[in-house]
Amino acid sequence: MRCVLVSKSLDLRGYLGPQFMRAADRIEIVSHPHEGPATDVRLAVAWHPPDDAFDHYPNLQAVCSIGAGVDNILACPSLRPDIEVIRVVDPAQAQMMSGFVAWHVIGHQRRFATYQAQQREAQWQRLGLRRAQDVPVGILGFGEIGRRVAADLALLGFAVMAWSRTAKPAPQGVRGFDGAAGLEAMLGQTEVLVNLLPLTPETRGILNRKTFARMYRGGYLIQVGRGEHLVDADLLAALEDGQLAGAALDVFATEPLAPRHPFWRHPRIVVTPHDACEVRVEAIGATFRATAEAIRAGRRPPHSIDRERGY
Amino acid sequence: MRCVLVSKSLDLRGYLGPQFMRAADRIEIVSHPHEGPATDVRLAVAWHPPDDAFDHYPNLQAVCSIGAGVDNILACPSLRPDIEVIRVVDPAQAQMMSGFVAWHVIGHQRRFATYQAQQREAQWQRLGLRRAQDVPVGILGFGEIGRRVAADLALLGFAVMAWSRTAKPAPQGVRGFDGAAGLEAMLGQTEVLVNLLPLTPETRGILNRKTFARMYRGGYLIQVGRGEHLVDADLLAALEDGQLAGAALDVFATEPLAPRHPFWRHPRIVVTPHDACEVRVEAIGATFRATAEAIRAGRRPPHSIDRERGY
Repeated sequence: MRCVLVSKSLDLRGYLGPQFMRAADRIEIVSHPHEGPATDVRLAVAWHPPDDAFDHYPNLQAVCSIGAGVDNILACPSLRPDIEVIRVVDPAQAQMMSGFVAWHVIGHQRRFATYQAQQREAQWQRLGLRRAQDVPVGILGFGEIGRRVAADLALLGFAVMAWSRTAKPAPQGVRGFDGAAGLEAMLGQTEVLVNLLPLTPETRGILNRKTFARMYRGGYLIQVGRGEHLVDADLLAALEDGQLAGAALDVFATEPLAPRHPFWRHPRIVVTPHDACEVRVEAIGATFRATAEAIRAGRRPPHSIDRERGY
Repeated sequence: MRCVLVSKSLDLRGYLGPQFMRAADRIEIVSHPHEGPATDVRLAVAWHPPDDAFDHYPNLQAVCSIGAGVDNILACPSLRPDIEVIRVVDPAQAQMMSGFVAWHVIGHQRRFATYQAQQREAQWQRLGLRRAQDVPVGILGFGEIGRRVAADLALLGFAVMAWSRTAKPAPQGVRGFDGAAGLEAMLGQTEVLVNLLPLTPETRGILNRKTFARMYRGGYLIQVGRGEHLVDADLLAALEDGQLAGAALDVFATEPLAPRHPFWRHPRIVVTPHDACEVRVEAIGATFRATAEAIRAGRRPPHSIDRERGY
């Protein structure tokens, strides 16, 4: 079996490194584009593949992402409907994300930005404490990462809600919501909104004026999904009129964020360079091997996404 | 039974409020100093009592603090050895403290201060992720609050150690240390040091040059015990020479912190105005009632401290 590495934005061979190559023992790994026969390529690892990439591989059975998101692969016009698309599930990634989100939630609860401003003025003034249970957090997206984030915030005492398209069992201390009505219901009780959704046609632009207006006034946005979930102008307007008190943004429609983008200088926006979490190369390797094994055995690979719903 | 409120720094009647007074149904509450018979005063609530305060109450049996720390009461010269000193245990306080500490630990792990500096320059640069398990946190003090802090940090994935004077059972995922040798051993493996110790003659000045020197280089101090635990000049020196990368200080030997104190303007010190957590008045009320009940029944009140060890 051969596997092809396909990316227009990343040197995948360098990114995955020699350990990944060695661990792929019985699989020959080539880089796209390449000379030689293409009919024996049955597996691909891809990240932002060129539009026509998959046309070269008529017998391709599965494409592995190198992250939890697969929107960059699904957007490729040459991806045929019968090709399985595999995302990487990495518990370590979920933990990294959870710590990142917890930091921003606690920072909002405890008003650390205000303390910082007071420190610059040598001003000793208590701000009054709000208990975690009085800070309702709504999480959009309730997959592996969302579950970990929700469970950790609940353990820290926050009033945690989590929404997904279809109903899912919720961990201890977390209230689950689903469907369109569930989204309305959750937003109406949300002060801190955490976006962990996959990017699909349905979720594109979901962080907009209407969504912010449904939240508690003085709310906070933690945007760690995909840049395209957010309508940038609507965020700026919601901050301007006080509907949102602040926002933490880790992902952007165009990355790196342009140096003149207003997000950089906004006093109530925290910008980080898409660094909330990362998938470890070991986890990519494990997913890759499990996929190859399934293909050899004629089984459907684990972590294949549902092409219809898009994640 | 009568109870006296004793403080030279705080209007305890205003602080505790009418709800506290009502809940103390069969106990008459008076404020120190007061007219009238003093021999029937068997209970006190105190915070920084005047030096001679307890001389007025020959039949005083117990003094309740309004916080977890009792050093301000033990320092009172008129406190006779037979008077029980009671501290307040409040699970909500432990949770507030835990969130405060977690914020600083994650902030150090994820280098949020560096991201903030980068944002000011519109600089898009990933800093590389360190997993929580690779950040060893050592906690000084392993009482009710320390246990909660340790357990929560362990759930967030950190490598947690906790030290107490005498051995105590450690929650899941936490390595316990005790005694002088245990302190040395823990410090030698500590990157982030969290101080939650009670203030006693033994712990005064424990956060000093030698302590910092035993930690990993580039460590971080989270000081939420008492101001007198810290040797201010030693912290500044450790930051200067790079032994410590930063510090979060919530408590100070003199509060409010003087406007010209160098801590305010130090670029790697985060100052908050003794606001990491607070004891709820409900918890003080519950402790007060339990103490009164025990005195009436001739039992030793719960949460009486050990006068010998000082906490």
